[in-house]
Parts: sequence; C-alpha cells; structure tokens
Amino acid sequence: MEEIKIFCPATIANVSCGFDVLGVALDNVGDTMVVRKTSEKGIRITKLEGQDLPMETERNVAGVAGLALLEKGDYEGGFEIEIHKKIKAGSGIGSSAASSTGAVWAMNELLGRPFSTLELVQFSMEGERLASGVAHADNVAPALFGGFTLVRSYAPLDIIPIHTPSELYATVIHPQIEVKTSDSRKILKTNITLADGIKQWGNVGGLIAGLFTEDYDLIGRSLVDHIVEPIRSILIPGFDQVKSEALNAGALGCGISGSGPSIFAFSKGEAMANEVAAAMKNVYKNIGIDYDVHVSKINREGIKTLQ
Amino acid sequence: MEEIKIFCPATIANVSCGFDVLGVALDNVGDTMVVRKTSEKGIRITKLEGQDLPMETERNVAGVAGLALLEKGDYEGGFEIEIHKKIKAGSGIGSSAASSTGAVWAMNELLGRPFSTLELVQFSMEGERLASGVAHADNVAPALFGGFTLVRSYAPLDIIPIHTPSELYATVIHPQIEVKTSDSRKILKTNITLADGIKQWGNVGGLIAGLFTEDYDLIGRSLVDHIVEPIRSILIPGFDQVKSEALNAGALGCGISGSGPSIFAFSKGEAMANEVAAAMKNVYKNIGIDYDVHVSKINREGIKTLQ
Repeated sequence: MEEIKIFCPATIANVSCGFDVLGVALDNVGDTMVVRKTSEKGIRITKLEGQDLPMETERNVAGVAGLALLEKGDYEGGFEIEIHKKIKAGSGIGSSAASSTGAVWAMNELLGRPFSTLELVQFSMEGERLASGVAHADNVAPALFGGFTLVRSYAPLDIIPIHTPSELYATVIHPQIEVKTSDSRKILKTNITLADGIKQWGNVGGLIAGLFTEDYDLIGRSLVDHIVEPIRSILIPGFDQVKSEALNAGALGCGISGSGPSIFAFSKGEAMANEVAAAMKNVYKNIGIDYDVHVSKINREGIKTLQ
Repeated sequence: MEEIKIFCPATIANVSCGFDVLGVALDNVGDTMVVRKTSEKGIRITKLEGQDLPMETERNVAGVAGLALLEKGDYEGGFEIEIHKKIKAGSGIGSSAASSTGAVWAMNELLGRPFSTLELVQFSMEGERLASGVAHADNVAPALFGGFTLVRSYAPLDIIPIHTPSELYATVIHPQIEVKTSDSRKILKTNITLADGIKQWGNVGGLIAGLFTEDYDLIGRSLVDHIVEPIRSILIPGFDQVKSEALNAGALGCGISGSGPSIFAFSKGEAMANEVAAAMKNVYKNIGIDYDVHVSKINREGIKTLQ
C-alpha cells in the first residue's frame, strides 16, 4: 500500500470530572487526511485545506508527530501528507490531536504496523506539545483507541480503553470565539483542596463504573467537575445557561470540551441528543454568538480508513 | 423473628488511591453480634466481649447507629445488642463500622426490612461520627453492600457497588500500635497539588476499570496513593519495608488500610495471599513488633446471618 485516505475523529477531552485523564472520540465529526509514501526522506505537508495553519513540517502537529515516528523506525523513505480539516483549530474538540494521530496512524498502516497503538499515542503527544506546550494524551488516546479512554498514568504512559455504552450520544456546540489551550491552562490553580479532590475522584470512579455497567443515570450523576469548570467556564460566554438548558432538555450531563470553548453534552439516544442540540443552539441564537453544532454517536474504533 | 445472630465483616477503606471514597469487605475477619427485639423502648448494649469499649448506648457506635434507625421508624419497642468483637478498635480495618452496620442491619432484618441499604449506610455513619468525628461512609458502605463500594458523593449520598473479581484476596497485617483515626486525619494537608490530584483520579479510574474487567495487573498498577500514604505512612513503623516485601512476594499492590496502622495487600489467589502474609510477618518479626495477620477472600455479600 502506497497511499491511504483516513477519517480522523474529533475528541472530547476531560469529560467533566476527568481533567487530563479522560477522553472520548466522536463518530461523524473529524478531518480527512491522505498520506502517501515517498522515496524522499522526511515528512512534507503537501496540502492543508479548511484551516489557516502552518505547513512547514516542524511547525505542523502532523509533521512533528510524523517525525517522531520516523525517528523510531528504520524506514528509509518519507511521507507526503494532505490534511482536509473540518475541525476548527482552537475549538476544543481535539483539532491538533486529529492531525497528529491521523499522520502517525496512517504512516503505521503504510509501513505494515510496526508500532503499537501506545507507541502511536507517544508520537502523537509530540504534536500536542507543539500545539499547547504540554504533551497531553487525553485527546490523542481516544482518537487512536476509539471510545472512552483513561490515561491512568503519564510516567509510565498507561492508556486504559473504557467500555462505551451503545446508546450514548454526544452533542457539541462550538461558540465562535477563540480560547487557546495554553491560555486556558494558565488560569488554572496549581493547588486544589483535598475536599474537592475527593469529590473529583469519586466522580471519576462513578463515571468509569457507569460506563462499564451502561448505567446512564450514574454516568449523568458523575459528570460533575469541581476543579476546572468553575474556573474555565468564565472564559466561555453563556456557559452556565447552555449547561442548564442542555440538562433541562434531558441531557445526562454537560461540561466544557477539552479546554473549551466548545461545550459537550451526553444523552441517551440520538433523538435526545438532537433535542439537546436545539436547546443549546437557542442560547447562542439569543445571545447573538455564531456557533457550530455537532450531534454524534460515540466512535468506538478511532481513526478509520476511507475508500 | 425476635432475635438474629450475624457476622459483621472487617473492611479496608481508601484502598490506596480512593481516599474517603473506596472500601472493600473481608470475608473471614469480623465480629459476631446478637440483636433481639425488646418491648422496652430504646437500645441497650447488654454484652460487649473482646474489647474494652463503652457500653452506654450514646457512647457506643452500635448504640448511636441503632438510635438513628429507631428515630426514623415507627417501631414502638426497642433492641438489645450483644457484641462479640474480634476486630480490634483502632486497627484500621473498620472496627467501629462493623458494630454500627451490624446493629442497624440486624434491626432492619428483625423489623421486616423497612429501610433500604442506603438508609442503613446513613444510620451507620452516625456511629462513624461518634468514633472519629467524621461521618464517613467508606467502611460502612462495603460492610453493608459487600464487595468493593465507591462513595461517589456524600451530598447527596451516592454509593456505587463495584464488581469484585473472583480470585482477589486480601492480606492484612496489624502491627500492635495504636493510631487514632482522628489523629491520622489531623496530619493530612487541606490542600494538594493539581498534579497529584490528576495522578490520583487517574488511578481511581484505573482501579475501577481493573475491577470491572478483572484485569489483576491493572488493579495492581492502580494501587498507588500520591496523596495520603506519603504522609500517613510515617505513623506506621516498618511501612515501607512491609510494602516492598509484599510486592516482592508477588502482591498486586499494598497500602495503608483506612487510617492505619493495618497494612493491606491484594493478591491473585489464596496461595499468593498466604505468601504475601509470610513476607509481611517477617518484617515485624525482625523489627520486634507484635502483629495480627489475616488472609481473606473478598466478601461479596456484606453482613451475613449466622445459625
């Protein structure tokens, strides 16, 4: 195989209670990439549509992740990468993770899968380091593994795939304002109270239990963030109202997607997820902020080959 | 039914990463209680063997928990309670929880089960308040529900039973020194770093996932406590050596049971749990501290009726 065309899913990181450790992949929101082998060494970004992002290899997350893979392998040639971005940079649904994971996943396919999924996570994290200054894994892990993933530990890196209930749908609304991941990390406090920590790990435990037992009510009760949401939500106009309207409409839970400004809600079933989308939209219509809305089943397989 | 004889299990709270939220019940370590209906109102502790503890109703954890139940019900009579304690007070394996849960569980049986298990947890928490100054639920929940339990939230109280792998055994060693729960709480810091919090909720998520998937290796990797163990272990002579010897012997993980001084280890299979017990014993033999050792399967049913 000399060329591959793939779908790279958008992802929701943190998932309310799981700051820096939890993430989940979406099914019909994502980028398309074409990656092909070249005899020339190195990585070249030959096309980048849909977003105004750097095309130089060392300044592009897909380029940097790809170089990390090339360094570890014994492949003598190189790759060309075309990126057709549908996920907006800075939207909070893993735009950089889609590109970095897509690059290394595709390269691994073209090379006959010499690397494990965990190694692909590590290569992709170099893209995240370029994008945000921190090599986090909470977006790249679900993009590569599919479904929900837990980053149990960073040193050593330990990624745990979590069972994904079949009727779980996500609604994501992206208000058209920009919040940089690096800025939204700066406003976080470096200390938290032990009391808030206890609440947070209680909810992480509840969410994981709810996912394994497909207990949608427990999933909803556990989607509470005592640490990050109270601080970051200040950067997102209308957040409290969007959240309360989503919950009123029947969402299981609602929170900030990644570092924002996108807001996600989970629902049981597609019909409810659409109702929640309508309720969330109304808030931004009334405030007068433009938005994109996505309704998606949870993606269980991660990056997919397209014909 | 006028009288009931029951087994009240010892419990391990916290379980390394799950401070204040996780607990697990043991199967062959626990107290025996006899509870009988009386026409006289109120609760009387008529026998208390095995430990030197207050017998006045208001100063006894079983009495206080029982009074909390009586206040909520419409039962006109009262109860006599005999407690045959085998769990040493202050040992860190839920001595007070065994008595308070046993009292209310037995009373509920004799009254025809008017109360839910969650209500029994709430009554028992009044016993814990008397014992330690804090109405925690991490010991009483597993005693009443059996197996592993998660206190997802205290307000409202939300207890989640967690799947218990069939080959999981606990080894508990109790060095004969006293650490009061109230003292061991005082030395904890009220603030933690966000970085440590992230590690902790990553491990709670990993432990819950490991329990549901019966992934013993993941259970072991998740039994890490970045918050409480580094502080509390200072109060337990030989802790670091006991832990390293338990892990060397093949334990999945090892940590402080509740607020100590007991130290627990989990193993896959009874034979390994016995080997771990031998390794732990040796440390205290060499140091010259007396100890009790228990090896137990995980109790999946909680309190049991005895014939």
